Amino acid sequence: MKALVHEGALSFRRNHPEPVRPEGEARIRVRMAGICNTDLEIVRGYMGFSGILGHEFVGDVVEAEDRVWIGKRVVGEINCPCRVCQTCREGLTNHCPHRTVLGIHKRNGAFAEVLTLPESNLHVVPDSVEDEEAIWVEPLAAAFEILEQVPVRPSNRVAVLGEGKLGSLVAQVLALSGCDLIVLGLEEEKLSRIRALGVRALHAREAEQRSMDIVVDATGSPDGFAAALKMLKPRGTLVLKSTVADRTALHLSSLVVDEMTVVGSRCGPFGPALRALEKGKIRVRGLVEEIIPFDRAMEALERAGRPGSLKILLDMNRV
Amino acid sequence: MKALVHEGALSFRRNHPEPVRPEGEARIRVRMAGICNTDLEIVRGYMGFSGILGHEFVGDVVEAEDRVWIGKRVVGEINCPCRVCQTCREGLTNHCPHRTVLGIHKRNGAFAEVLTLPESNLHVVPDSVEDEEAIWVEPLAAAFEILEQVPVRPSNRVAVLGEGKLGSLVAQVLALSGCDLIVLGLEEEKLSRIRALGVRALHAREAEQRSMDIVVDATGSPDGFAAALKMLKPRGTLVLKSTVADRTALHLSSLVVDEMTVVGSRCGPFGPALRALEKGKIRVRGLVEEIIPFDRAMEALERAGRPGSLKILLDMNRV
Repeated sequence: MKALVHEGALSFRRNHPEPVRPEGEARIRVRMAGICNTDLEIVRGYMGFSGILGHEFVGDVVEAEDRVWIGKRVVGEINCPCRVCQTCREGLTNHCPHRTVLGIHKRNGAFAEVLTLPESNLHVVPDSVEDEEAIWVEPLAAAFEILEQVPVRPSNRVAVLGEGKLGSLVAQVLALSGCDLIVLGLEEEKLSRIRALGVRALHAREAEQRSMDIVVDATGSPDGFAAALKMLKPRGTLVLKSTVADRTALHLSSLVVDEMTVVGSRCGPFGPALRALEKGKIRVRGLVEEIIPFDRAMEALERAGRPGSLKILLDMNRV
Repeated sequence: MKALVHEGALSFRRNHPEPVRPEGEARIRVRMAGICNTDLEIVRGYMGFSGILGHEFVGDVVEAEDRVWIGKRVVGEINCPCRVCQTCREGLTNHCPHRTVLGIHKRNGAFAEVLTLPESNLHVVPDSVEDEEAIWVEPLAAAFEILEQVPVRPSNRVAVLGEGKLGSLVAQVLALSGCDLIVLGLEEEKLSRIRALGVRALHAREAEQRSMDIVVDATGSPDGFAAALKMLKPRGTLVLKSTVADRTALHLSSLVVDEMTVVGSRCGPFGPALRALEKGKIRVRGLVEEIIPFDRAMEALERAGRPGSLKILLDMNRV
C-alpha cells in the first residue's frame, strides 16, 4: 500500500506492507487524513517516532473482530491503552504508561491506505457529517478536553491566545459556555475569519493585562505561556494547549504571588466533538486550505509547514 | 523606637520614629517576631521593598479605633487591601492590586517595637497559645491555604518536597486529611525531626517517580519544580509554595502531555491556623532554633540566613 513513513527522514512509499489485523482490532481503509502541527513536530524529531505518520483520519472498517463494525464509516481515538495497569484501572486510559498512540508513539498512523486500531477506539460518524468535517473530530475533542478539566462559567472573562486552527476550535467550544470570550492573534486575515464565527478577535498588542479569569494558550509558541500569564487576573487559570518541544524560561514566583493555576490539556472525548459537528454547533469548513491527493503527500506536508497555513487534508481516493 | 530597617542596606536603628496610628488601624506593641525566608529574599532585593522588615509577629494592642481591641494579644494578617476595587469586591482581598503588605510591600513591618495594622486584619490569640507558637500563625495559615485551593482526598498519595520549616508545617497540615503522605528532603537531621511528628520522611534520592497524586514544592529552590513534576502521576497536581526570584527553564510539553495541574499558593486563612495551634494539632516548638533579643537583630538575620537554620525569633522585651 501507499504510506508516508518517517524513519529519521520522511518518505512516501508505494509498496509499504499492509498491516495485519491484531486480535481485537479493526482494519480500516482510510478515506481522508488531516495534517496536524504535531506531525510537523515529529518530522523535526519530537517524540522520537519511527513509522507511518498521521493521527487525524476518517475511514471505512473493512475487517473486524465484531462484525457490526464492518462497513461502518468511523473516526478513531488515537491512544491505545493496555487497560490492565493501575493508571487504566483508575480510568486514566489516555495516560496509560504502556499506551501506543496512532502515528505518534509506537503505532503506525493514518497517512496510509490502511490502518488498524482497537475496536474500542472507534466511533461511527453520523451520515450528516461529511469526511472533510469528520477529520476534525480528533482536534475538536482536544478542544472539548478544556471543558472536561476547567469549569468555564458564563460570567467568566476568557481569552484564547492563537488565531490558528486550534485557536478557532477552542474558541468555538468555549463560546458554547456563554462566557465573555476574546481571541487574540497576530494575523488580521485569520482574526477576521474568527470574527465571522461571531467571536470577538483582536490583535495581540491590544490584549488587556490582568483582566481574564481563564486564558488558553493555543499559540504553539514558547512565548505563549508568559503572554497568557500576564493577561490573567490573580487566581486565574492558564490552560496550556500546545506542546512546545523547547525549554521555556519562566518566573515561577508570579505563579505563587498571584496564586495562578496552570492546567496542561491534551486529548479529549470524541463523543461531544461528534455531537457538536452533527448539530452544526462548530464550523470547520473555513479552516481547510486544500484537499490534496495522497500521492502528493510529501508536497502536502511541506505546504502544511508554511507559516500561517490552514488545514491540509490528504485524500486517499484521489490520484 | 528600635527598628530593623531595609533601605538598600539593612540597619538596626534605636531612634526610629514611632508610627502614628492611621484611622481604622490599631497600634500594636510587638512582643515577638519571626524571621522568614521572604525577609532574607527582600534583603537580597526581592520586591524592591524599602522600610521596616518583618511580617510574622505577636503583640498587644495599645491603641485602636474600636476600644474592644485594647489590651488584646493579637496576630495580624499581612495583606492590607483597599476593599473597594473590583478584585476586593470579588472577595479576593489578598490579591487586591492596591494592597500594602506588612514588611513586604509599601508598609512598615514587625521588626520594630511598635507597628500599626487595620483592625480588620487582627485575630485574638487564645490564652493557651504561647507567644513562641503564635508567631507561627502566618506561615501555618499559608500551609492551610493548600487545603483551600486543592482537594486532598484520604486516598491520595501526597509528597512534600522540602524538609525545612515550611515543609514541616505543610506536612502536618496535609496529614490532617488522612492522605498517604511522605516528606522528601536532603538533611537527615531534619528528616528525623519530621519522622518524630509521625510523618514518613526519606532522602530525596529515594523519591518514587510518577507515583504521586499531589506534590507540594516547599524547597525554596529553583530545582524544586522539575523534581516535583517528575514525581507526579499523569493528571497530578503540583502545588508551588515557595517564591523563587530566579527564572527557571522548564519543559512545558510534559505539563501538556501528562495533563498536569500547577497551583501557585501564597497567604492563607488565619482562623484554621489559630484553631489548629489551640487544639495542639500542629507542633511548632521543635522548629525554633533560638529566641534572640531584638537588640541583636542584625546577628539574628545573619543566623537565619545560614543554610539549614531553623526558625529564629526576635524577642522585643529582652535586651
